[in-house]
Amino acid sequence: MTYHQTIDERFFSPEPSQRRMAHELYSRVKSLPLICPHGHVDPQMLAASTYDWGTPVDLLLIPDHYIFRMLYSHGIPMEDLGIRRKDGAPIEQDHRKIWQTLCDHWYLFRGTPSSIWLRDELRDIFGIEEKMTSANAQTIYDAIDAQLHDPQFQPRQLFARFNIEILATTDAATSTLDAHQRIRAMDQLLRVVPTFRPDAIINTQGAQFVENIHLLSDVSGVTVTDYASYITAIEQRRQFFKTMGATATDHAAPTAYTGRLSEREADAILQRALRGDVSSEDATRFTGHMLIEMARMSTEDGLVMQLHIGSYRNHNDLIMERFGPDMGADIPQASEFTRNLKPLLDLFGNNRELTIILFMLDETNNSRELAPLVGHYPALRLGPPWWFFDSWQGIRRYFDNVMETAGVYNTAGFNDDTRAYPSIPARHDLWRRASADWLAEQVLRGFIDEEDAHEMITDMSYKLAKRTYKLETQA
Amino acid sequence: MTYHQTIDERFFSPEPSQRRMAHELYSRVKSLPLICPHGHVDPQMLAASTYDWGTPVDLLLIPDHYIFRMLYSHGIPMEDLGIRRKDGAPIEQDHRKIWQTLCDHWYLFRGTPSSIWLRDELRDIFGIEEKMTSANAQTIYDAIDAQLHDPQFQPRQLFARFNIEILATTDAATSTLDAHQRIRAMDQLLRVVPTFRPDAIINTQGAQFVENIHLLSDVSGVTVTDYASYITAIEQRRQFFKTMGATATDHAAPTAYTGRLSEREADAILQRALRGDVSSEDATRFTGHMLIEMARMSTEDGLVMQLHIGSYRNHNDLIMERFGPDMGADIPQASEFTRNLKPLLDLFGNNRELTIILFMLDETNNSRELAPLVGHYPALRLGPPWWFFDSWQGIRRYFDNVMETAGVYNTAGFNDDTRAYPSIPARHDLWRRASADWLAEQVLRGFIDEEDAHEMITDMSYKLAKRTYKLETQA
Amino acid sequence: MTYHQTIDERFFSPEPSQRRMAHELYSRVKSLPLICPHGHVDPQMLAASTYDWGTPVDLLLIPDHYIFRMLYSHGIPMEDLGIRRKDGAPIEQDHRKIWQTLCDHWYLFRGTPSSIWLRDELRDIFGIEEKMTSANAQTIYDAIDAQLHDPQFQPRQLFARFNIEILATTDAATSTLDAHQRIRAMDQLLRVVPTFRPDAIINTQGAQFVENIHLLSDVSGVTVTDYASYITAIEQRRQFFKTMGATATDHAAPTAYTGRLSEREADAILQRALRGDVSSEDATRFTGHMLIEMARMSTEDGLVMQLHIGSYRNHNDLIMERFGPDMGADIPQASEFTRNLKPLLDLFGNNRELTIILFMLDETNNSRELAPLVGHYPALRLGPPWWFFDSWQGIRRYFDNVMETAGVYNTAGFNDDTRAYPSIPARHDLWRRASADWLAEQVLRGFIDEEDAHEMITDMSYKLAKRTYKLETQA
Repeated sequence: MTYHQTIDERFFSPEPSQRRMAHELYSRVKSLPLICPHGHVDPQMLAASTYDWGTPVDLLLIPDHYIFRMLYSHGIPMEDLGIRRKDGAPIEQDHRKIWQTLCDHWYLFRGTPSSIWLRDELRDIFGIEEKMTSANAQTIYDAIDAQLHDPQFQPRQLFARFNIEILATTDAATSTLDAHQRIRAMDQLLRVVPTFRPDAIINTQGAQFVENIHLLSDVSGVTVTDYASYITAIEQRRQFFKTMGATATDHAAPTAYTGRLSEREADAILQRALRGDVSSEDATRFTGHMLIEMARMSTEDGLVMQLHIGSYRNHNDLIMERFGPDMGADIPQASEFTRNLKPLLDLFGNNRELTIILFMLDETNNSRELAPLVGHYPALRLGPPWWFFDSWQGIRRYFDNVMETAGVYNTAGFNDDTRAYPSIPARHDLWRRASADWLAEQVLRGFIDEEDAHEMITDMSYKLAKRTYKLETQA
Repeated sequence: MTYHQTIDERFFSPEPSQRRMAHELYSRVKSLPLICPHGHVDPQMLAASTYDWGTPVDLLLIPDHYIFRMLYSHGIPMEDLGIRRKDGAPIEQDHRKIWQTLCDHWYLFRGTPSSIWLRDELRDIFGIEEKMTSANAQTIYDAIDAQLHDPQFQPRQLFARFNIEILATTDAATSTLDAHQRIRAMDQLLRVVPTFRPDAIINTQGAQFVENIHLLSDVSGVTVTDYASYITAIEQRRQFFKTMGATATDHAAPTAYTGRLSEREADAILQRALRGDVSSEDATRFTGHMLIEMARMSTEDGLVMQLHIGSYRNHNDLIMERFGPDMGADIPQASEFTRNLKPLLDLFGNNRELTIILFMLDETNNSRELAPLVGHYPALRLGPPWWFFDSWQGIRRYFDNVMETAGVYNTAGFNDDTRAYPSIPARHDLWRRASADWLAEQVLRGFIDEEDAHEMITDMSYKLAKRTYKLETQA
Repeated sequence: MTYHQTIDERFFSPEPSQRRMAHELYSRVKSLPLICPHGHVDPQMLAASTYDWGTPVDLLLIPDHYIFRMLYSHGIPMEDLGIRRKDGAPIEQDHRKIWQTLCDHWYLFRGTPSSIWLRDELRDIFGIEEKMTSANAQTIYDAIDAQLHDPQFQPRQLFARFNIEILATTDAATSTLDAHQRIRAMDQLLRVVPTFRPDAIINTQGAQFVENIHLLSDVSGVTVTDYASYITAIEQRRQFFKTMGATATDHAAPTAYTGRLSEREADAILQRALRGDVSSEDATRFTGHMLIEMARMSTEDGLVMQLHIGSYRNHNDLIMERFGPDMGADIPQASEFTRNLKPLLDLFGNNRELTIILFMLDETNNSRELAPLVGHYPALRLGPPWWFFDSWQGIRRYFDNVMETAGVYNTAGFNDDTRAYPSIPARHDLWRRASADWLAEQVLRGFIDEEDAHEMITDMSYKLAKRTYKLETQA
């Protein structure tokens, strides 16, 4: 151990005083429970009496587009990685062979968050200390595989082992939340709550929009025939989600455009959309209007509103056609918030009861628009660095670009935003270490004192997320 | 003192060799006089025979929108902070209670520039070493209040104590500069100079545009009836400002758009504006034309031209309506310089006598457009990081993004841009420390040698501002 | 040597453990041969039996717009620096005087890459250890001048001394490559290869477009009369370049816009262009189409495609008029890739045999668009930081903003992109040191292990460039 830090000091600055201070701060929070207020874990996993993880490839590669996109970028066909094609064409079935491919190309991931999360996951959850190589691929496969069948590795057991205090899933507005109902029935103490995600009933150009509106009518018991009944049905669903424990909604849009329509205009677009005859401009205006409408509902029912802005979804036509959406081909675009959010903020930005959490993929927004906006408007908070930035450098840039202007207390703490359930502890650990290292430097440079740093590390690791998502009262 | 640096080494790197080198560099400049070539101190303050500071809240909170916007962002009404409403509606009058509110919420400012400036100000000016807390709020209030009545705390006394060599205020083009006249009459040695700010007579959509033009006619003695007399009146005012010691003008615009109009077009817009009938496009074109015209005048009268670009002013309608402008709700926007400035640069960019100092709020402009522009055009210099970036990390990003391409000697040194008079020393000190820390790393990595660093720290702390704003000849 | 690092440890972190690790990593690669896959060295220089370097000013100042733009930005006329005017007006002829001017203003370059490259070049190539000053200007001039006449300083001798393994030049599509033919004839072992640069026959608004098309007809033997013959002629030229050793093409465009035209539309625009009657929109659409067409040809002939996006060329009208293009007045603009490249990527982005290397001047593209794009599409790789960013901080930002998302193995290693032949070793050295310092921190923080770092430093310094540009097979 000449150069290396010990595992417990990993990620901290090479500078000894900062490393020591970071370690001290980190020690205060490393055992705190995990607050997971936004993510994409499948609730069925936690509702199943016995859950079948499948193979190590089913667990670690197939659901993780960060893993397979990197292999794909180096010319390995998705079919060879066991990704299911929409047309049912043959794909590689031998998961040992796929795992070998991953290990053979493990060098591609050097220095990426994927490699760090997976390494930490293998060590901390599976007890595998070895680095993945071509030579040990099958041995590691065996070691993982064996544990997947262990009852201790069942999702609900892991929930406790991971020290998760509360986990929010993300659910279609039309979902019956039956998995959540089953979880409640099985274990009152397992705190899994839904999040209301209405994109599929708001994006009028979505492939199944009309179908989804029919579904909305069915599940809400309100037959949607016009804008008024549409709004009533949505409000009904929000109420239902609340009774199931939801404290938040989530909205994705390519841009942050907001703009109020008259009820008449909104109705006209909706009618056209129900006939399947909607223009791209209609869709943009309707989404921009509905974001305002959702903020209005939040002022009434208290649900925290999340906005995820800026992704060009499914950018690769070929991949979309063959494999469907969410296959690692979402690409960020430049975004604008100052003008786009103004109509919404003019109506609700000064509302002290409302909480809107902003997420972005264009980092230039951070220091330019978002830190100043959340540093002024009472209704706004800034979410952690989303997606391509949930990495050490991405987190550092976020701290450096946001905190001085926004203030730590206008940010929303951490969320892991993951569907890769076993990666949750590794992700929270990275955030906590990044926070500790950043605060350590703040102390050593004399911007804050140790007393402040001790409170801030707890706030950043635990309390801010809980408070911002109103999960305190929810207990 | 296990982890902390001493106060004198604050803000420097935790790495011992860099800290030592930074401290050595800083020591060379910490006692240099302050050059304040751009700011918003009220000259009346320095012209009054006895100035009444009011309470600690009048001194430190009410004039500082960085302080009250942060409290507002956490739901504390501006009325509760003693901010005067336009409609005269009741606001909190008990300043001890307001101060208590500030101290109760002091944690919100952790790590922000406001907290650092205020801490340093309390320690260095008021001798208060304690951290603000709920418990000691009233004691600190008392300690500040007592000193506000001390004759040593009168603004002119502080001018000397702060070691200010020269201070430029920012003044409406129509100002009679009577405060400056009184200052001159009282104390020839107090170097306070005005800056010519003509925004209110150029922005044809401004609320009081017509009124301001009448005022311009009055003070200039040139009755403005058309574009020709308008230009004459402006030229007359610039001459008057020069006789009062001005060396610079200042211009704010939402974008950097410049474009020459024919005299006929300019006159037509002005005529419409005088009738109160001006479109948004008219206003943009007129401003774009007048920026060129101002550059032309600067080539003739030698005034340094400052351009502050990119702010969406008074973004919050409710706050604007209730409390008026400049209430912490100015939000930056993405800006463009390469194409927008070209018409102006084609005419005057190669003029070696002209100095135009550019300021921006969109940091992406720095490495992309501004550093290359100022690194080529003789007429251009880059101002320090404005506003939301006058913070440790903001200054570091500015150094890192600008200096390699632009070269230090195409930048304009520091200016504090503040209306918070007692915060001036803390701000200059932060800049000097940031410069020293940055230069120390440059030396230790071998990019420059110590000899260079010694000159550069003096230039960055003192000489560049003096030279760029032509304050050397002014002495 | 209290503070300074030794020369051999220059540029590395002041932190001792990182410095040590960086030095160890750097030691592994400092003697590796240089791969120069993209640059602007004049092949005539290597083809001449005896090459006359001229004076030190001819060698170091006149061909380097980074040097003279900085002097120009401080008001020194280009004429005084010996830059030739298009109109043949008199310019300074006394190169000793010009050199004195450079040394008198050497402080302007403090901390810039130019000062670092030139310092390292003088020391490592000319053995001059002194810093340039007004006092020693003529002595240094003499020392350089003497060596320029040394046979050891002939370009081909330097090729070996610089340890260049292969050097690619950039050549007009219409070039006969006679210099390359002569080099081959003289020395089979000197690996100098051309790069196919067709901008002048694609940009229909270029000053000599029609003339260039005639030239294309001449050199290709295919008379260009319409779009079909135009394409045939281009394909013919690419084949010729391949036979001369080319492995790549290079394309510059102000934006990344791509869009397919029908053959009929393309032909119509070409016909208008040949009549000299082409609109700006025509030109944009034709370029956007031809980028796709060039990608198509690359899928067939295997040439690696380079895209250099985002420069506003020759921004200063006066300089362009007096001195012509490439005079230090190219200014970057904001760029967009996600939507602009989609048409090209829909057609060829999934092609595993194709390699397209993207270069940008708008750093915001790096983390937002380019790292995600190259981290997904098999055909894409990201080039090193171009131009105004080929500096220590620029390289650091590139590593920090790109590597976590893209992965090191989706980048293209280094290229020096220079016409300043003797600066080549200093530039590669800076990159290797920056890579070593960055990797050292990665190891010390525990993101990668030493074994990985050892492979990565070799890949980043040498192998990635060789592999990406297909120079392995070319040997």
